[in-house]
Amino acid sequence: VSRDQVNLDFRRRERLGFDEAILCDPKSVAQLAAILEEADERDASLLLTRLQAEQLDRLPDAFRVRIDYDPVSRTGFYGDHSPPRGEPRVGVLTAGTSDVAVAREVARTLAYYGEPSLEVTDVGVAGLWRLLERVDDLRKLAALVVVAGMDGALPSVVAGLLPGMVISVPTSVGYGVATGGYAALHSALASCAPGVVVVNIDNGYGAACATLRLLRATAAS
Amino acid sequence: VSRDQVNLDFRRRERLGFDEAILCDPKSVAQLAAILEEADERDASLLLTRLQAEQLDRLPDAFRVRIDYDPVSRTGFYGDHSPPRGEPRVGVLTAGTSDVAVAREVARTLAYYGEPSLEVTDVGVAGLWRLLERVDDLRKLAALVVVAGMDGALPSVVAGLLPGMVISVPTSVGYGVATGGYAALHSALASCAPGVVVVNIDNGYGAACATLRLLRATAAS
Amino acid sequence: VSRDQVNLDFRRRERLGFDEAILCDPKSVAQLAAILEEADERDASLLLTRLQAEQLDRLPDAFRVRIDYDPVSRTGFYGDHSPPRGEPRVGVLTAGTSDVAVAREVARTLAYYGEPSLEVTDVGVAGLWRLLERVDDLRKLAALVVVAGMDGALPSVVAGLLPGMVISVPTSVGYGVATGGYAALHSALASCAPGVVVVNIDNGYGAACATLRLLRATAAS
Amino acid sequence: VSRDQVNLDFRRRERLGFDEAILCDPKSVAQLAAILEEADERDASLLLTRLQAEQLDRLPDAFRVRIDYDPVSRTGFYGDHSPPRGEPRVGVLTAGTSDVAVAREVARTLAYYGEPSLEVTDVGVAGLWRLLERVDDLRKLAALVVVAGMDGALPSVVAGLLPGMVISVPTSVGYGVATGGYAALHSALASCAPGVVVVNIDNGYGAACATLRLLRATAAS
Amino acid sequence: VSRDQVNLDFRRRERLGFDEAILCDPKSVAQLAAILEEADERDASLLLTRLQAEQLDRLPDAFRVRIDYDPVSRTGFYGDHSPPRGEPRVGVLTAGTSDVAVAREVARTLAYYGEPSLEVTDVGVAGLWRLLERVDDLRKLAALVVVAGMDGALPSVVAGLLPGMVISVPTSVGYGVATGGYAALHSALASCAPGVVVVNIDNGYGAACATLRLLRATAAS
Amino acid sequence: VSRDQVNLDFRRRERLGFDEAILCDPKSVAQLAAILEEADERDASLLLTRLQAEQLDRLPDAFRVRIDYDPVSRTGFYGDHSPPRGEPRVGVLTAGTSDVAVAREVARTLAYYGEPSLEVTDVGVAGLWRLLERVDDLRKLAALVVVAGMDGALPSVVAGLLPGMVISVPTSVGYGVATGGYAALHSALASCAPGVVVVNIDNGYGAACATLRLLRATAAS
Amino acid sequence: VSRDQVNLDFRRRERLGFDEAILCDPKSVAQLAAILEEADERDASLLLTRLQAEQLDRLPDAFRVRIDYDPVSRTGFYGDHSPPRGEPRVGVLTAGTSDVAVAREVARTLAYYGEPSLEVTDVGVAGLWRLLERVDDLRKLAALVVVAGMDGALPSVVAGLLPGMVISVPTSVGYGVATGGYAALHSALASCAPGVVVVNIDNGYGAACATLRLLRATAAS
Amino acid sequence: VSRDQVNLDFRRRERLGFDEAILCDPKSVAQLAAILEEADERDASLLLTRLQAEQLDRLPDAFRVRIDYDPVSRTGFYGDHSPPRGEPRVGVLTAGTSDVAVAREVARTLAYYGEPSLEVTDVGVAGLWRLLERVDDLRKLAALVVVAGMDGALPSVVAGLLPGMVISVPTSVGYGVATGGYAALHSALASCAPGVVVVNIDNGYGAACATLRLLRATAAS
Repeated sequence: VSRDQVNLDFRRRERLGFDEAILCDPKSVAQLAAILEEADERDASLLLTRLQAEQLDRLPDAFRVRIDYDPVSRTGFYGDHSPPRGEPRVGVLTAGTSDVAVAREVARTLAYYGEPSLEVTDVGVAGLWRLLERVDDLRKLAALVVVAGMDGALPSVVAGLLPGMVISVPTSVGYGVATGGYAALHSALASCAPGVVVVNIDNGYGAACATLRLLRATAAS
Repeated sequence: VSRDQVNLDFRRRERLGFDEAILCDPKSVAQLAAILEEADERDASLLLTRLQAEQLDRLPDAFRVRIDYDPVSRTGFYGDHSPPRGEPRVGVLTAGTSDVAVAREVARTLAYYGEPSLEVTDVGVAGLWRLLERVDDLRKLAALVVVAGMDGALPSVVAGLLPGMVISVPTSVGYGVATGGYAALHSALASCAPGVVVVNIDNGYGAACATLRLLRATAAS
Repeated sequence: VSRDQVNLDFRRRERLGFDEAILCDPKSVAQLAAILEEADERDASLLLTRLQAEQLDRLPDAFRVRIDYDPVSRTGFYGDHSPPRGEPRVGVLTAGTSDVAVAREVARTLAYYGEPSLEVTDVGVAGLWRLLERVDDLRKLAALVVVAGMDGALPSVVAGLLPGMVISVPTSVGYGVATGGYAALHSALASCAPGVVVVNIDNGYGAACATLRLLRATAAS
Repeated sequence: VSRDQVNLDFRRRERLGFDEAILCDPKSVAQLAAILEEADERDASLLLTRLQAEQLDRLPDAFRVRIDYDPVSRTGFYGDHSPPRGEPRVGVLTAGTSDVAVAREVARTLAYYGEPSLEVTDVGVAGLWRLLERVDDLRKLAALVVVAGMDGALPSVVAGLLPGMVISVPTSVGYGVATGGYAALHSALASCAPGVVVVNIDNGYGAACATLRLLRATAAS
Repeated sequence: VSRDQVNLDFRRRERLGFDEAILCDPKSVAQLAAILEEADERDASLLLTRLQAEQLDRLPDAFRVRIDYDPVSRTGFYGDHSPPRGEPRVGVLTAGTSDVAVAREVARTLAYYGEPSLEVTDVGVAGLWRLLERVDDLRKLAALVVVAGMDGALPSVVAGLLPGMVISVPTSVGYGVATGGYAALHSALASCAPGVVVVNIDNGYGAACATLRLLRATAAS
Repeated sequence: VSRDQVNLDFRRRERLGFDEAILCDPKSVAQLAAILEEADERDASLLLTRLQAEQLDRLPDAFRVRIDYDPVSRTGFYGDHSPPRGEPRVGVLTAGTSDVAVAREVARTLAYYGEPSLEVTDVGVAGLWRLLERVDDLRKLAALVVVAGMDGALPSVVAGLLPGMVISVPTSVGYGVATGGYAALHSALASCAPGVVVVNIDNGYGAACATLRLLRATAAS
Repeated sequence: VSRDQVNLDFRRRERLGFDEAILCDPKSVAQLAAILEEADERDASLLLTRLQAEQLDRLPDAFRVRIDYDPVSRTGFYGDHSPPRGEPRVGVLTAGTSDVAVAREVARTLAYYGEPSLEVTDVGVAGLWRLLERVDDLRKLAALVVVAGMDGALPSVVAGLLPGMVISVPTSVGYGVATGGYAALHSALASCAPGVVVVNIDNGYGAACATLRLLRATAAS
Repeated sequence: VSRDQVNLDFRRRERLGFDEAILCDPKSVAQLAAILEEADERDASLLLTRLQAEQLDRLPDAFRVRIDYDPVSRTGFYGDHSPPRGEPRVGVLTAGTSDVAVAREVARTLAYYGEPSLEVTDVGVAGLWRLLERVDDLRKLAALVVVAGMDGALPSVVAGLLPGMVISVPTSVGYGVATGGYAALHSALASCAPGVVVVNIDNGYGAACATLRLLRATAAS
């Protein structure tokens, strides 16, 4: 892979406030190296998502050692990232332990941009008391990212209880009709609670970016 | 339509405890008349489901006047049916007003076999307090038929709160990804709460029959 | 339909800041009348969505004359609603003229809660200059609701150009593979631009509620 | 994985009569260990489902040796479980040998709660005599869990012959249009026999829980 | 519509033994008239399928009066057709009364080519005895066309009991997951009984043609 | 509908060589009138597609009488259009008479831009000789637009016989699995013949535009 | 796996003329061994389909050495099978080399029952001359099994040229929209040629059984 | 695999101007060797597509060393191929780096036939400036092959800016609703820009063949 196959959107931060993020999963190691090399030349930072441990291991050392890697979320920070600001304004809720990998991608993307978050795990609706006892804490937050697979009932319940922005991330956790995450996706889109918004299945990165757009709109006004 | 095209399963009651029910919607008026005529000859009762008002109007008078018709559920009782027994052992819950037609089909089918039911309307999860304030009443019931379209979150919440049999009837209420009831169906099948069972979309009749199987198993043991 | 079949979530405004909205399309006129009657008793306002002209015509006069009805969006205001506040903070963009009905549902829902909006019509990507010449106006807005059927390319382009919150409403406009709006829905969910969020197909009401959640989070912080 | 990512629903038994079951397949070994540790602290028992042999092998010895593991159903009992009560009240029928793994999950879940079951294998409708010669035995049972992939014709035939509760578990056994189990699922949902109920594809655990709800309702009445 | 838009395959009978059949439903009345006119010029017979009563009524009298029309199957014979030969070699079985229209299309197509058939109605598997008591009659037939919607269990049961050719015609009878006939189609394709073959949903005409191919192969050998 | 809801792409011709075409079907008559009024002001011509006869009838006379309308293809020419140039360079093939409406949309769109076409009807593969006897005529053409529903086998056969550009237009003609045109679409996309390209189901307009792009590329080189 | 989990349909041959065939792919080696043991006890022959080489290797030697295995079709003959009878009455056609594995399953199943077949490879419609030059040979055959993936155009062309029974076996060969074989399946079901019948995707075994039913009907008449 | 299972379409070049290309992925190494042997006998060249590195390694040396293999596109040239002609007339655009493998298949297929192409990488619509600054270069080209996965917005934007033939190749790059490439496929088919044509998902070979048909039509006129 020669360098001229890479053409990063290095004007994105000025336009949108985001650096380009690199979805690593479908790329070859040669392509990843070319991308990191271009970032170095421009002295740019990059957020790496869906970076497989095997891909990381096969990167040239010069690149590999400079990646701050989290294996649960499979995210990497390349170059500088923002220092954390104060109190969390965002909650990241998961229905079950199996949804934690995606929730962590949300939290890591927020952290890359200096935004802390409150992670609340295992509050699926089969044991409703676990959510109800956290409602007062969560009421103060501007945004609630709800990460749930299987039946996808959690975003509807959350959006019926709390006034903040509810961003649903369906996950591909489940089997049978839940395979691939469509049951959770459709349930979130068809929510009977008003104003639930949805991102693609397993797209923790996207939910975090949406939250950042929201928080900046807040800051700007 | 000549009579020899009709071949009712008149041995069903002895075998299963049910009379054959007639799904009227896809049948011609001539076919319905032939069926009622055969029932008369055998002195049998019939439950008619999905009987359109237009079909009813076009039936010969001799048949029409003997049908006890409910327009909301589009069910008809032809011939005798069982007298009501005592207290309800079954709850029929709906998420929204639009689900009432299907819920009424459940209640009417149960009534045909003498089984009273407790209808609880408009307890969708967007306003969770409406369900929570009924939990104590519902805890005593052997079965809960949960009728819900759109996101189909209600059966999971009910099955997480109550120990009775939970039978979910997804409805085709909704638009976009909820069209046709698949979102609700898949959400119910993928429920994170243990032991939710499901019948076909809009199949109030089937949910009632399942409830009857349950109650008889109860009585027999 | 007797009144006890209606069980409005009259505590929703205190909890979430929204009145319950009534999806009229799948309800009978009798059900709608019962709902309006309950609203009257509680002295509550209601937003009516997908109210067909035929349904409106068949409502009792006492209810009908008090509904402020817009035939393009098929929305009705029942009872008081908020007066408009100052400058628009929300843009509502449509790809084509055929998407206007849904866009108007967004604008009307926002108006019910006193929020003005800037409607920008016919800026589909086949004639990109129409969008590019509006970019500077749109850059100031906190949220951009993008209403588009067919290929659903517009939200990706908008989210690549502008930093505000981008809420995509896929529409069921189109034929062949665009029938029902799935092509536009999936394109928006799979957007290559960071942070696009999506609501159900044709769900202008939901997009408006999400925008209101956003604006209140902004106001609260 | 730190312990605070685990938040078991330890109040489930008092509420529903079930312990929380752990779907092991999508979880990391670290997550499973944290869950077992929390169970130990609360002195709770757990049912483990879809526990891969590889996951079991990689668990710390202290946990592993205390798991009563069945490789056919991939279930594990952690901690005490109920002693068996008397005669079977439940039949577990399979269409073919390939469905046995799921049927065994049903039987093992029932056994965890002390409920014996009668397993009847290889009674698919292509050789109908195999089922017909067992009809008299099966007529006495309160519930029949029917485990079948491919065409899913078995639950309809069983429900046409027997008065007990019929709970269908479609399996993902098959190829072509049967891949993933949708053909069997849809066939069961569309059954022409009255009162068949259905759980998710391959969800033997769910079918067993539904049976337990049924048997307790029976016992309570 | 001018005549040169019509280009019938008038060499089909010599090649395949069939006249071209006209699927009338999607054609305009002008197109149908042009087709009949071309048939007249070539002195050819035609089988008309899915001919709506409204289409028939709007045809010019000269054509209309010469069509032998059956409203149940919506088939018409135009011109001569073969006289009936002796005993039926084909059975046409239906699961329920609602499937009769399609079954009649099978029988009428066979009749057009002089082939009698034995119609056996309402033998769905929910009342298995109705089929079992006909097994001896059916065993003598060369082919069994099984017309069934909903769960589509009938072809598997028939093919497990009888050695003849089993041709399944799924029908679009049903609702929910049975809508459009896919549940029945997939069940038939995934049949656990050996050698079931399938035609398109509601394609009674195709099943009859397949039967004719079979009977001619028989005759030729 | 006020005029400011209309925002035609009047710069399209200079950019792409096309006038904007108006998809009339999903638009209200008021919207259509506003569009035609804007065209008048700019002295522009318009191609109207999927214009229903009822829509045409309800347009104000001033607009209606100036539309050159073809009811088979439901297309209208508004304003001037190009005079026809010499010999056809494009063939438009249909599998059956039911596909003629879409084929005519191809031909009419080409005619709007002055491009004649050769229509060849009813050459479906069930009667292959009808196509084979036209092969020599068709070999000279630069492009072959193949309009076919049902099994969609025709484009593969055509592209295996002829060297010209093959543009497939699947149609929604058919029933059962052919409903909506997906069987034909997928068959064309999966063609075993090299270089078949495809447009949306029933999109005769799009196929014609693609042909025009091709012919201009030819002319330019 | 204990022997009592196996319950072969050993009465199938007398009823249908077939031995039970064992679909090996989804079964464990222990289950396969138990099945072969039961066959030995009953002195029965078995046809093994989809037997993976790895499964074969892991079977106990006593069973393994007695299996006549063909790796292309992955079929095994266990025990005696019929000697070949005279001239082929069946053709097995493949569109491409990739379809040969399935075609060989057809031929091997026929061979198990003593029926020879004529294999004709690589006659896909992209090179139509390869089929046309074989038409005269094929016209004499009673049945044509057409094995084709991708666009599935071959069965329509074959059935338009030849009067024999045409049994289509769609294959899962292909990518994109052809993945899994649905494009080929739907194309075959929607065939514009009269009387094509279809079996499940990749179901060579089923197509052979259907052919055997046909040939026996022929023999019997 | 014996040689008589191979039946190449060696008359394709005279008919269509293409050699038969071999889709290697689903074939066994034995089948590939037989194909190359037949090519040698006929002294023919072959283009090999989707040739896995593992397949290449396992081919007999005599064949392997004569294959000009490109690992990015997984294409091989066997035998002679055309020398390159002058300036590129075709552009190959990719939305992202992950789409390069498919784009390279387009370029390699064109190169096999001597046609140079201009590759333009990473011009996805999230960073629109990257495309806009290339518009003047691209305007001169006869054809633009647009290779894009995920939301598939790029072909609509390209076809709205440029007058050349736009051939869209959806790719299977993406996750969630983008899995398999259907979101990109449907978006391209439903494009709001006039005259976009589409080939199967990941079918770079097909797009190149379509381009060659176009360029020859151009040359011939």
